[in-house]
Amino acid sequence: MKDFIYSEISGKLAHLIKTEVLKAGERLPSVRMLCQEHGISMNTAKRVFLELEAQSLIESKPQSGYFVSRTAYRRLPLPAVSKPSTLPKHKEPADLIDRVYANMGNDKLTLFSVGAAVGSLLPQARLSKEIVHATRELKGAGANYENPQGNEKLRRMVAARALTWGGNLQEHELVTTSGGLNAIAYCLMALGKPGDTVAIESPCYPGILQLALSLGLKVLELPTHPETGILMEALKKALPKIDICLLVSNFNTPLGSCMPDENKQEAVRLLSSHGIPLIEDDVYGDLYFGTHRPKCCKAFDTEGNVLLCSSLSKTLAPGYRVGWVAPGRYKEKIMKQKLVHTIAGSSITQEAAANFLKSARYDNHLRHLRKTLQYNYRQYVDAIAEFFPEGTRTSRPQGGLALWVEFDKSIDAVELYELAMKQKISIAPGRMFTLQDQFNHCMRLCYGLPWTDDLQLKLKKTGKPCKDDKEITFINMQ
Amino acid sequence: MKDFIYSEISGKLAHLIKTEVLKAGERLPSVRMLCQEHGISMNTAKRVFLELEAQSLIESKPQSGYFVSRTAYRRLPLPAVSKPSTLPKHKEPADLIDRVYANMGNDKLTLFSVGAAVGSLLPQARLSKEIVHATRELKGAGANYENPQGNEKLRRMVAARALTWGGNLQEHELVTTSGGLNAIAYCLMALGKPGDTVAIESPCYPGILQLALSLGLKVLELPTHPETGILMEALKKALPKIDICLLVSNFNTPLGSCMPDENKQEAVRLLSSHGIPLIEDDVYGDLYFGTHRPKCCKAFDTEGNVLLCSSLSKTLAPGYRVGWVAPGRYKEKIMKQKLVHTIAGSSITQEAAANFLKSARYDNHLRHLRKTLQYNYRQYVDAIAEFFPEGTRTSRPQGGLALWVEFDKSIDAVELYELAMKQKISIAPGRMFTLQDQFNHCMRLCYGLPWTDDLQLKLKKTGKPCKDDKEITFINMQ
Repeated sequence: MKDFIYSEISGKLAHLIKTEVLKAGERLPSVRMLCQEHGISMNTAKRVFLELEAQSLIESKPQSGYFVSRTAYRRLPLPAVSKPSTLPKHKEPADLIDRVYANMGNDKLTLFSVGAAVGSLLPQARLSKEIVHATRELKGAGANYENPQGNEKLRRMVAARALTWGGNLQEHELVTTSGGLNAIAYCLMALGKPGDTVAIESPCYPGILQLALSLGLKVLELPTHPETGILMEALKKALPKIDICLLVSNFNTPLGSCMPDENKQEAVRLLSSHGIPLIEDDVYGDLYFGTHRPKCCKAFDTEGNVLLCSSLSKTLAPGYRVGWVAPGRYKEKIMKQKLVHTIAGSSITQEAAANFLKSARYDNHLRHLRKTLQYNYRQYVDAIAEFFPEGTRTSRPQGGLALWVEFDKSIDAVELYELAMKQKISIAPGRMFTLQDQFNHCMRLCYGLPWTDDLQLKLKKTGKPCKDDKEITFINMQ
Repeated sequence: MKDFIYSEISGKLAHLIKTEVLKAGERLPSVRMLCQEHGISMNTAKRVFLELEAQSLIESKPQSGYFVSRTAYRRLPLPAVSKPSTLPKHKEPADLIDRVYANMGNDKLTLFSVGAAVGSLLPQARLSKEIVHATRELKGAGANYENPQGNEKLRRMVAARALTWGGNLQEHELVTTSGGLNAIAYCLMALGKPGDTVAIESPCYPGILQLALSLGLKVLELPTHPETGILMEALKKALPKIDICLLVSNFNTPLGSCMPDENKQEAVRLLSSHGIPLIEDDVYGDLYFGTHRPKCCKAFDTEGNVLLCSSLSKTLAPGYRVGWVAPGRYKEKIMKQKLVHTIAGSSITQEAAANFLKSARYDNHLRHLRKTLQYNYRQYVDAIAEFFPEGTRTSRPQGGLALWVEFDKSIDAVELYELAMKQKISIAPGRMFTLQDQFNHCMRLCYGLPWTDDLQLKLKKTGKPCKDDKEITFINMQ
């Protein structure tokens, strides 16, 4: 009942903001006023504001209250729902991916193209202490082989956190991996054979596309909504044609879409009833902007048919290569893959990661990181609204690290990439995220960089050449 | 000329020992005497003794000189040259492998079955310091993604050590991996497709057998000599049938065989001229007992057709998961595999390993480890000669960690395994090392454990039941 009141009120306010009855910069009623007006508790009123803030519709100013955010006012239209071909086609954008990936780690470039939080947003000093501590605690045993299934403490900590996504796991149900992509690789190798078809969202993380192709799998890209993820109708239709389904259920890259609970539940049910395993990639799930973490498909899995993959690479320490999979009834197959490919994981980084998760520090860090990312996202959208050409559309991630930008069809994002590179800016052209001839007028911008005036200028430079004559604009710009 | 004199004299002395003209425990002429007798330099005379010691024919006693070793006196006959079927057959001993591998890390068992040096033989304290140092040196950057090709310093250090095996490498020619098996996995995935045939030595490390099968490759086991490795004639005959060749050229497990230089050179030439890539696994190469490190096949590779795989897991720190491959002309393919499977390696352990290799400590440690392993090996052979049944044969490794024991055909090594397990002893039955119906009367014993009276007792218990009535023997034994 309380849930109902809270969502009714936040829905009404959201409507007033979206229809510009409440305009950008205007103050909202205070928490106290909201209580009196609607006869609700302080807690419920606070939750209303937090929810609107999570949607980036309002922002709080210390000691002043809540205001309609600029972002909301300038809300850019959503990108189109993708419509990939229904036939698996393989035109791998390998050269493009290689070119963009080659920029990784180049500190002379502004890397809008790298889908991770930069080091300065991570608790580096604290992590270093954790490594030193783990090394001492292990008394030299860090040099020895780790348990092949994975560090036991780490598995226990990861299992304990399953509660946050509506799950229920025990340590023996987890296998650690060398990062999240490695977990997906084991799943695909364990479940698929060359010629099998794997269904994915479109657009999709290039690492997954390349991995699937390298294993000889056929990739079926499915229509995907920029806010709610894969279209359930499309998935349903595709069922007879697919052997494996791979979904990045929460704040996937590049769209930032998040599947609603009912879609998650339905996807699990459909796939399970057709005997199709679901590989779920949840590496961004902890990076929610809202009041609560989204659930995983795995939370609705009663038959062990979902293989939940995740890692600490997007939230804590990519350099540790700590990931895991909760493979449900496929555990033995996954263990076999791990054994034949690498035997065991690195002892010390697993131990250090386990200790970090055990302390309150991980949650503190996540709170801070989420706030920073949401702030960055808003700044990006404001800058795009100001500097990018009319008609530019952007996704509306409510978590994660990536913003999907769709231009007018006349704009070629690869050309844009080349122009940006001349200004020492790296972006990720849309064509990287598909095997088909689509998204040529799209790009992904990551907001895992600290927001600065310089970053704003770089965004401006990225968007400018589409507005005016390209070459001349760049030559005249600082 | 000097080389000729030295090998002539050591050959003569070896003959005297093997024919028991010089008996076990007898003192050899002093270095000085040898000089006078043969008119050679002190250095040449010393080299003669070192060579005989490397062959375990003599041993030095401090302040007393050199003596004919007991091992030599009791020299057990060599196991037979293997004769696997010429057809690729796949009867995977998966259950047996699972059972034996499950004992890994069980500190209630004596693990003759684990093919690695135990932690107490590794420089654990020093390695811990190296981790702490690397963590501080990286100033928090250990949390970040490492260079996808691998830590640059580590690659430089590994390249520098190529001189020790007759090679010539530069850092850009190396790709780091998560251990040696991971390197082999990338090679097999990059070069093979399901249905392709890979030729290997027989017997062979089970991890390689299982990896190849899991990738859908056919495995062709080739006849292998316990001292000189794969039979060149057999390899030559197999050429038209194979797509990839995988050789553990130096002190492989389980045989401990080491290919002579001329075989290495010939294998490289043959495979290259047939366009068949050679994956060379050299994880044991640094563990030589002799006066100099054996060469790698890669040293004879002028066309980039050899993919040299190695790691620090057998010599320094299995828990670091630090391995590498020098993939020759297949570098791009290997990089692609690494990128799609795991992006990058662990930052801190690579940095720490690089620093350790950079210092003199690695060579000091290796010297110590080699001495210990050779000592252990001699003790094992003595114990086997004393306690194991008549007719037991053993391999004669001149490096590495593994001893191959061949019993009379009436003895079933799996039964022996079960009897030993009742005594809390784990051995590796021969059937683990093949996909065919062979080696049922063989087992592998690893000598990477510190030698103690208890260990001797455990070896006695392992060999006893074959000598007498099995069950009764065990019941009556302490």
